[in-house]
Amino acid sequence: MPSGKSSRRLVVTAGEPAGIGPELCLDLVNSALATQLVIIADAGMLAERAASLLKPVRITAYAPGSSPGQGELAVLDQPLVNKAICGQLDSANSQSLLDGLTRAVEGCASGEFAALVTAPLQKSIINDAGIKFSGHTEYLADAMNCRTPVMLLVAGKLRVALASTHLPLKAVPAYLTTAGIIRVLRVLHADLKSIFQIDDPEIIVCGLNPHAGEGGHLGHEDQEIIAPAIAACVSGGMKIRGPLPADTAFTPVAGHADAILAMYHDQGLPVIKYAGFGHAVNVTLGLPIIRTSVDHGTALDIAGKGTADSGSLFAAVELAAELAGL
Amino acid sequence: MPSGKSSRRLVVTAGEPAGIGPELCLDLVNSALATQLVIIADAGMLAERAASLLKPVRITAYAPGSSPGQGELAVLDQPLVNKAICGQLDSANSQSLLDGLTRAVEGCASGEFAALVTAPLQKSIINDAGIKFSGHTEYLADAMNCRTPVMLLVAGKLRVALASTHLPLKAVPAYLTTAGIIRVLRVLHADLKSIFQIDDPEIIVCGLNPHAGEGGHLGHEDQEIIAPAIAACVSGGMKIRGPLPADTAFTPVAGHADAILAMYHDQGLPVIKYAGFGHAVNVTLGLPIIRTSVDHGTALDIAGKGTADSGSLFAAVELAAELAGL
Repeated sequence: MPSGKSSRRLVVTAGEPAGIGPELCLDLVNSALATQLVIIADAGMLAERAASLLKPVRITAYAPGSSPGQGELAVLDQPLVNKAICGQLDSANSQSLLDGLTRAVEGCASGEFAALVTAPLQKSIINDAGIKFSGHTEYLADAMNCRTPVMLLVAGKLRVALASTHLPLKAVPAYLTTAGIIRVLRVLHADLKSIFQIDDPEIIVCGLNPHAGEGGHLGHEDQEIIAPAIAACVSGGMKIRGPLPADTAFTPVAGHADAILAMYHDQGLPVIKYAGFGHAVNVTLGLPIIRTSVDHGTALDIAGKGTADSGSLFAAVELAAELAGL
Repeated sequence: MPSGKSSRRLVVTAGEPAGIGPELCLDLVNSALATQLVIIADAGMLAERAASLLKPVRITAYAPGSSPGQGELAVLDQPLVNKAICGQLDSANSQSLLDGLTRAVEGCASGEFAALVTAPLQKSIINDAGIKFSGHTEYLADAMNCRTPVMLLVAGKLRVALASTHLPLKAVPAYLTTAGIIRVLRVLHADLKSIFQIDDPEIIVCGLNPHAGEGGHLGHEDQEIIAPAIAACVSGGMKIRGPLPADTAFTPVAGHADAILAMYHDQGLPVIKYAGFGHAVNVTLGLPIIRTSVDHGTALDIAGKGTADSGSLFAAVELAAELAGL
């Protein structure tokens, strides 16, 4: 994937305009990758946000073939319906934001853009606009006809994938099936090879229960649901170990792994957010395009104050560039 | 608690004799605290283990008032029924191990010993002997008539307590009650003050569901079960915040906490085992005595080979000494 793509741009969607996304994007000016970025946002809103925060950023119109200069950001204008006010969500703007996302996806699919980086949207206000939206990942999977998107968090060499994502805890055990875990493992394995360029990836799989069920004393799913999924993948030639107790899986005792598959959100994310605070990046696997995102929300309470930390956006842009071979 | 206790000993139970506990205890010889330790074990077994591992340790009989010298370990002899063989569990020895534990507890309760440190037992073989045993914590709580023992893991300044411990994941949501969480918070708060000498402890409480339920979109227990428990404790004057998303609770964004209360095993332990690998210590709160333990198991597969890492036992002994004011 890396070779021959260096002339293409990364596209960054600025996210909810009442949140911190736009001001984080402004921080990308003059970064090492600035000349290879296209921001999708309301250009006037972005210019205004720069002015009010006294950030010396010139907003220029994106044109394929020309790069922004020093102090400039290339923006593909996606006008909002109403003027965006920091901290105040407005459902009238929701469709515009999704249109911007669609434009970004189309550009990635056509080869115009090398990868997609997303700043956060606010699910609730999009739903208030009467549009069904349960998150970027699901939206992108739908748009690209992908059955099994896989959420992967990356912080340096630590990579944590999830077998289930945003479910109430009590719904997790019934959600997990052998077939579903096999699908996730196949996507994870394939994308570690194709996107992360790891020849023969090693994956550790966590158990569902404490101590991975301790031989059935603490639950049966580990042996009855998870172990057969691992066995099926191993017999298909993949290097996969588990189910391991989750409190062993992330320690040196577990040995090397290119990725660790946690069974649910709070089994895996607290570790990687602790380990990679401020620079963890969310990567959606299973899509035909490369997509990374920040690991935080819209932070409406501090939007427009210039205090938001752009570390995660920088990390997301840098990882997208690396994965796309820029 | 610290003052005036410096003449008392720490008592260390050597744990399952087919496992690594005895050889880890041998490593304590000549440590900074060696003169203040009493090991409870079969003295002959311990001497033999030292000989076979070529460890220059003399086993001397514990006598109150006299301390072991250089190269010596004081042992309170608790004879086994059968000769212990590394890696081979023997249910004939189970009662002896529990008798040793009882002797240790009695010594702590009477003031003979300052604190208890336990090496791991093997639950299954004790159960095979026809003795109901679901773990040190439950055994000690029973023996000391303690309704709510609380499992706390400590690694440096990071302290993680659990609202539920060894349950199948699917049993966790129904197990948690407002009254139960209040009891755990009261024990945690009281022992942070009395044992850890923290004047006005601050506690962060994790939600049960991802994103602490995201306003009810991802589960209701966070608002219906956990929030009322926090409110009750706060109105009683405790500094408690939450429920916080577990993937925020362990990051700097969550602010200072003297302890973090996770709702279940794999929400909290993977983080602290990752953060404090090899030196995390398990402390049982709610007991009338101070008790610490290693954070690993019997490791039957490497017992007798001299390769086991005594880092966690050293950390458990050092923390017990610190908490007991030695």
